[in-house]
This record gives sequence, C-alpha cells and structure tokens, in this order.
Amino acid sequence: MIYFDNAATTWPKPPEVLEQIARSFTDYGANPGRGAYKMAMDTSRLIYKTRETIASFFGVADCRNIVFTRNTTESVNMAIKGIINPGDHILYSSLEHNAIWRPVKALEKIGVTSDSFTVNQQGKVDFADLEAKIKPNTKLIACLHGSNVLGAVLDIAAIGAVAKKHHLYFLVDAAQTAGALPIYPEKIGIDLLAFPGHKGLYGPMGIGGLYVRDGILLNPLQEGGTGSNSLEAAQPDMMPDRLESGTVNTPGIAGLAAGIQFLNAISLEEVLRHEQMLTKYLYEELSYIPNVTIYGPDVCDHRLPVVSFNIMGKDSNEVGWTLGNDYDICVRAGYHCAPLAHKTMGTLEQGAVRISFGVYNQPWEVEKCIAAIKKIAQ
Amino acid sequence: MIYFDNAATTWPKPPEVLEQIARSFTDYGANPGRGAYKMAMDTSRLIYKTRETIASFFGVADCRNIVFTRNTTESVNMAIKGIINPGDHILYSSLEHNAIWRPVKALEKIGVTSDSFTVNQQGKVDFADLEAKIKPNTKLIACLHGSNVLGAVLDIAAIGAVAKKHHLYFLVDAAQTAGALPIYPEKIGIDLLAFPGHKGLYGPMGIGGLYVRDGILLNPLQEGGTGSNSLEAAQPDMMPDRLESGTVNTPGIAGLAAGIQFLNAISLEEVLRHEQMLTKYLYEELSYIPNVTIYGPDVCDHRLPVVSFNIMGKDSNEVGWTLGNDYDICVRAGYHCAPLAHKTMGTLEQGAVRISFGVYNQPWEVEKCIAAIKKIAQ
Repeated sequence: MIYFDNAATTWPKPPEVLEQIARSFTDYGANPGRGAYKMAMDTSRLIYKTRETIASFFGVADCRNIVFTRNTTESVNMAIKGIINPGDHILYSSLEHNAIWRPVKALEKIGVTSDSFTVNQQGKVDFADLEAKIKPNTKLIACLHGSNVLGAVLDIAAIGAVAKKHHLYFLVDAAQTAGALPIYPEKIGIDLLAFPGHKGLYGPMGIGGLYVRDGILLNPLQEGGTGSNSLEAAQPDMMPDRLESGTVNTPGIAGLAAGIQFLNAISLEEVLRHEQMLTKYLYEELSYIPNVTIYGPDVCDHRLPVVSFNIMGKDSNEVGWTLGNDYDICVRAGYHCAPLAHKTMGTLEQGAVRISFGVYNQPWEVEKCIAAIKKIAQ
Repeated sequence: MIYFDNAATTWPKPPEVLEQIARSFTDYGANPGRGAYKMAMDTSRLIYKTRETIASFFGVADCRNIVFTRNTTESVNMAIKGIINPGDHILYSSLEHNAIWRPVKALEKIGVTSDSFTVNQQGKVDFADLEAKIKPNTKLIACLHGSNVLGAVLDIAAIGAVAKKHHLYFLVDAAQTAGALPIYPEKIGIDLLAFPGHKGLYGPMGIGGLYVRDGILLNPLQEGGTGSNSLEAAQPDMMPDRLESGTVNTPGIAGLAAGIQFLNAISLEEVLRHEQMLTKYLYEELSYIPNVTIYGPDVCDHRLPVVSFNIMGKDSNEVGWTLGNDYDICVRAGYHCAPLAHKTMGTLEQGAVRISFGVYNQPWEVEKCIAAIKKIAQ
C-alpha cells in the first residue's frame, strides 16, 4: 500500500507515538488534575509537560495559553464563537475549508455578517481587496495558513499586520502547516492559532489544540467540571481550565508529545526538504502527462507537499477510486471539505484528485504513482 | 498501589483496549469517511461498528443516533445548548455535578432560567417538588443518573414519566452509571443520554458519547467539515454528521469498542455483583469505626460502588493525601466537581473522601484500606 493521504491524517505514525500512548495506560492512567495521589499527579505532569512542548514548538511564552481540543475544527469554533457577538463582521479567505466557512456562516442566524477576501490559486492575497472589505464592525480575520487542496501558502505575517493596523483579531487555521512550516504566533501577531495533533505533528487522531493570546478571555462553548474553583457556578477565568471542561484525552495528549518530539529530533527543515523533493518530482512528472491539469502554485518551493490534479474529462472520484483499487495507492478525491477552494480553482463540478506526502514517503512510491496516472490518463 | 478512584476513570483498562488502539494505528490509520481507498473504508467501518456496539449496548434501534464526543461534559453541553433557547426554563436535581450545573447557569446570560428539584442523600426524588417546579416555559429536565459523590441512584424511569407527562425533554447524565447499571433510553423515555467512554465502559480517556432520540434535531455547537454535503455552507441535518465535525478520535473509538466487548463478555450483572460485594464490605467495616461518617444510601443494593466518608474534624484532603502518601491507596478527596451534592450532604466546608471500585479491585485491597482508615481515625 502506498499512502498519499497525509493531508487528511499522517500515516504511519512514528513508533514512539504508540509507545507513549501505551505508557499512558500504565504510568499515567489516572484522571489528571483531579486527585492528590501519585499517579494522578504524574498524569497531570504529563499533560503539563506536553503543553510546554507545544508552547515551545510554537514559540509561545506561557504554556497555559495552549488549550487541548479534539481537532482543528473544534479549535476554530472555540476561537470564533468565543469572541464574536451579534452585529460583528468577519473576514475569511476565498480558499477556506469548511472548518472556518461553516461556523462563520452559522453565525448569520445571530446577526453576524461576513465577507471573503480574494486569494488566488497561488496563495497570493489581494491585500487591496482585504483592506477594502474591512468595515467599522469588522472584528476578526480568520483564514487558513495553507490550503488543503491547492497546497498554496498564505502570507500570514502580512495578513497579521493588516489585522493589527485595524485592531482586528486574527485567527489562523494551521491544519495543513503545523509541523510543516515554522509558525510563531507571538512574533507575527496571531491572536488565535488552531492546529491539529494528527497531521504534521504526527500525533494520533482525536487531539488538537488552540493557542490563545495572553489577555484574550474567550467565552467558552462548554462549561463543566475543571477540577478548579469547584464551588463556583461560573466557569473559571483561569487558563487553560476555562476552555477544558471534563476529562481530557490523556492518551491522545501523550501521543502528541511523542509526535512533536519525533519531529523536533528530525527538524522541520529536514522534513520539509524531503517532502518538497517528492513534491517537485511529482509536479514535474505530472506536468509532462497530456490531459493532466495541476492546480495551485507552480513554484514548488512555495507550496505544501500537496498536489491536486485532474485528468481531462474524468470524474475525480473515479480516478481516485482507480488509484486505490487497481494500484493500492491511497489518495483523496472530491471536494476535500473545501468548496471555496474548488470555486477558486474552477473545479466545483469535477472536484480534484489530491496527493499529499508525509515524512515516511519515498521516491519509489511517487514513481509508481506517476506510472499509474500515466496509464489512467491514456 | 491500590487504585480506588474508578469513579474518576477506571484503571487499569482491560488489555484488549490497548491492543485495539494499537491495531487502529496499523489497520485503521486513515481518516474515516474521507477517502474511498481500502484503509479509509476499513476505518469508517470500525467507527460504524463501534456505533452499532454502543447502540446495541443501550438498546438503541438506530446507531446513527449515537454521537461520539470527547467526554460526558461535552455531551451534556451539546444536548442542553442544542435544544434550549432564550426564555426557556430548565430543571436539574440537587445532586448535580458541575457538568450540568455550570452549563445551565451559563445560559442565564441569554435569558434562560432554572431551578433545582430536591433529591435527598439516599437518591430519593421529591416528586411533589419536581412537579411543583415545572413552569409553562419549562423545556428540559436534566439530571444525573447516579451521584459521583454519594453513590445514590435516581429513579430515572419515574423522572422520565414526569417529563413525558409534561412534554418536556429529558436529559440523563450517565457519567457514573453507563456500564454499571442497565440503561435503555428508548424504553424509559430518555431523550438525550450523555455517557463517558473511560469509566464504566472501560475505554480510554478522551472518548464519550451522546444518544439523541430519533426526531430531535440539535443545534450544533460546532460546524465544520463532515465529509458529507461538502458544497453546502450549512451543517448537514443528517445524523451523526450534524454533531461530528472534523476528524474523530479513531484510537479512542477503537479502544471504547474493546472496552464494551470486555464488559459484555463478563456481563453487567457480574461486574455489579462483584463491586457491590466490595462496597458492602467497605461500608459495614467503615460503619464500625468511631468518628467515621459515611454519606449516601445505607442500603448497599441501591448504591453505586462509591463510598464517601469523613473522619470527624479532619480535612478530607488531608485524609486523602495520607491514604495516598503513607499507604499508596488512591482515593479522591475534596468536592469532586459537585458542590450541589456536597450542599445536600452538608459537607461544603469539609468536602469528603471518596472510594470508588472497578472490576479489577479485590477484597484484600479493601481490607488494607479499612486498616489504614482505622489508623488514621485513631
């Protein structure tokens, strides 16, 4: 089996991830933060240390500003709904995944309005359009860092500067970039950073996170037991307790710590170099195949290890199915939960076939895939 | 180490749980519901089968009405906020955990009112009080099935009948009872059942669920990618997609399936008999120790395997600490995130020490614990 669906979740995971999860069942099996005996305190320390590992990874000074969530989608919902009130206006990019588009649109029913600003297939932000769309009631710019369909990367530092100039909150969805590109929210004015644990950070599915800038008090989407201020009806203000009610995903957190340690040991630069080499190879070979259309940035140094394409006239789902069924190559076809990106690409009818790489992929796998696509395109 | 904190999370987990989680990393490592290749479909099937296992466990006809969440707290928030609107009134019991109390109280800021109905330390519901507190705008009765502090069990069938008579929604928080007592929501008129995966069902921390009665369309707390109706801005109505946005906790779901299978193989009756035997033994022995006060039902056949007590004049946290530090016995002291229960018990000052059993506990462990408490009480 050749696994090229790393933008959905990376696979395989480093062996250390499962080892650390297994240890969480023996050494860290108590409910953290809710007992004074040794195993409960050890478990609390594991959670705290993972928070520190993540904070350090993103250059965040205070690890209490890292909140554990189930996935990026939850982080995005927590961020947007935690600061937006009726009457506010939100700006989002024309490449968004449904993780941002759907919650923003759902807020219309409480009187929130929104507009999208133009980003082209290359990831180039139309800053004139962005500035023109800022209204007196605009409160938030919410956008992805990298497109899950196009592989295009947005200049979040420049968008952050616009947000700062206009005193807007800035939320970045790093679903595709956490672990792929260096991101330092406190350096470039990101107020809220949503990230997955199970993609570029090589942790297990079921864990994600949200960075919240110091001084932002989000209205929680959920209240409940926090093991702190237990006698109070009100959710505590204290972070991260405010946003983490009920029992946390201890095995997931343990696994995420191991994933980040694995990544740190190799270095982001090495991983990116490896994946960009594969991406460049695939991109160039695909571009020689007649009837194949490739989407997104044409300069491989400025794209994520994600390549979406179509074979003229062929349904993308059919091509995806053939790659899986006849060649045992795992790719994703269709809309990738990102209709806005497909609208920008002009593929709302056809969808696209997406190949996405991870650290374990090898050149021979790419070679086999190119041969398969050639056959299908004939 | 003697582990008596099973009401917080059961420990150890059956070996099958970790084995199944490990398999999820090799055989079910794709993002479920988001790809047409074999591993993605296998992973989808694993998720679906677990949903079926849970539905069958609770006697639920259609497994699409089972939603995966992170924990009971999330399930409760999803249920309450999914049906409650400004102007509505909620009834909750006088034994609630903060998982219900805090979200109910948080809704005050959007004009929701609430009252508590009286349940005594034995778990006896004051039905006259309950009926008297129903108002024309009452929409929901929300209560726990069993108290995490007192071990008292509420007659949810009778409460369900009251809810039905008055056309109210009925939400049950089964944090302490799922896996301990048989619960068939569709037989006794429960509209919404919140349950944890990591307590009586012996799955890992980080997974829980919510049963939603057929025909109830909850307003989702989160929107995002569902892998379905991807071109629509609106969250799909279809269950469970409507309430499961973003990547699910595949390892957690895999582990939960194994936990329930473990439980089914032994049978709920056997587990309960074993735990009640330990509970009875502890209860009787504790009742002979001078200066020890035990809370909750005095008939052990009508309580969960949870015994809370205090030693006269001693801070409960100090007693808990001593049991952990000097005797390596893991218990929980303090408020257990349930100030309402402590108010009912009259222990808002002192808190209480809680011992809670699981399937792996043995009589000799109880014996050691009794000896330790005797020494501390001297």
